[in-house]
Amino acid sequence: MSKVRAHISASLDGYVAGPNQSMEEPLGQGGERLHDWVVRLRAWREHAGMDGGEEDASSSVVEEEFANVGAEIMGRGKFGPPRRGPWGDGTWQGWWGDDPPFHKPVFVLTHHERQPLTLSDTTFTFVTDGIEAALARAKDAAGDKDVFVGGGADVINQYLAAGLMDEVELHVVPLLLGGGARLFDGVGPDVQLELIRTVEAPGVSHLKYRVMR
Amino acid sequence: MSKVRAHISASLDGYVAGPNQSMEEPLGQGGERLHDWVVRLRAWREHAGMDGGEEDASSSVVEEEFANVGAEIMGRGKFGPPRRGPWGDGTWQGWWGDDPPFHKPVFVLTHHERQPLTLSDTTFTFVTDGIEAALARAKDAAGDKDVFVGGGADVINQYLAAGLMDEVELHVVPLLLGGGARLFDGVGPDVQLELIRTVEAPGVSHLKYRVMR
Repeated sequence: MSKVRAHISASLDGYVAGPNQSMEEPLGQGGERLHDWVVRLRAWREHAGMDGGEEDASSSVVEEEFANVGAEIMGRGKFGPPRRGPWGDGTWQGWWGDDPPFHKPVFVLTHHERQPLTLSDTTFTFVTDGIEAALARAKDAAGDKDVFVGGGADVINQYLAAGLMDEVELHVVPLLLGGGARLFDGVGPDVQLELIRTVEAPGVSHLKYRVMR
Repeated sequence: MSKVRAHISASLDGYVAGPNQSMEEPLGQGGERLHDWVVRLRAWREHAGMDGGEEDASSSVVEEEFANVGAEIMGRGKFGPPRRGPWGDGTWQGWWGDDPPFHKPVFVLTHHERQPLTLSDTTFTFVTDGIEAALARAKDAAGDKDVFVGGGADVINQYLAAGLMDEVELHVVPLLLGGGARLFDGVGPDVQLELIRTVEAPGVSHLKYRVMR
């Protein structure tokens, strides 16, 4: 059965990006460190088209997350820079260069219409009619596979609050960011969760939940 | 070496008490559920002077936390009701009846002077000259044992921000409270943490950190 799921690294104080996100610091001040645990892993590097990397208790968690994903939904802020500029003139092509590490259909939530953009084997489709429409299109594209809601926090929060998410996994990093994009803002208390599992790993705790409908 | 440490149950969205704390709901709306995982455990019930209870993967975590504590520091809000009344006229004796489950010296942070209160083998001392003075007195009372900072969130946050805490353990519960008393508010980003361990248990994830000085 196809699922709608999210997984994201969060600081212990609940942020998935630090304060003052900018062109130079897309993840905000200190936000880059949220991903230290994963970028050194072979499982992540392979997916990103890079050689080498390590194995640890996080490896199987990352492999499981990458497996069986048929489409991704992301927010305008994950695709593009937080300020006007190349996005406004329609030349912005994402952060990832000519060969984005998605290799699947990506649906970008935005208020600005734009023609689909294909780079290598990733096609970005810009959806202006809301989260439910984007989900319908992503499910259609994913077929039997899962739909991954790739962030940012606001997008994950919207799908959670709307009761459209099946599973969410947090990678809790021992970091206090003190500000930024907060996961779960505006979501509780009506959304019910059930703990699926906890995984201990070096420098990160993996907490996976089922969202009850 | 004597440590200063805190352990507290938190919702996945970071609250250690729900919104609208009151005499009837000291832990706020929905906050009581933060402790469902622990109140059914034998380790907790024994400490609270109650019979029976279960064992699970959380038992050893709870036993470890209760062990070697020589004194507790708590906020005015943990000791007393959040509104005026019996506290104001000096007759409030805490939430716990004639035999409070502390069995050790407790230092209550408050702005209102009051004579020490002894109930069974617990003495509450009211400290009006700040968190460092309270810590000095608690360390003195604890001797070789640890000082436990028992909450609420604001008290733990103050000790963290002041660089006075050695260890903090969160019991992350699969619950979204949507509001209330937020742990780590005003603490980051200068406080550095190191993950000591993650423990998987039914219905709760135990995350323990060392606070770097």
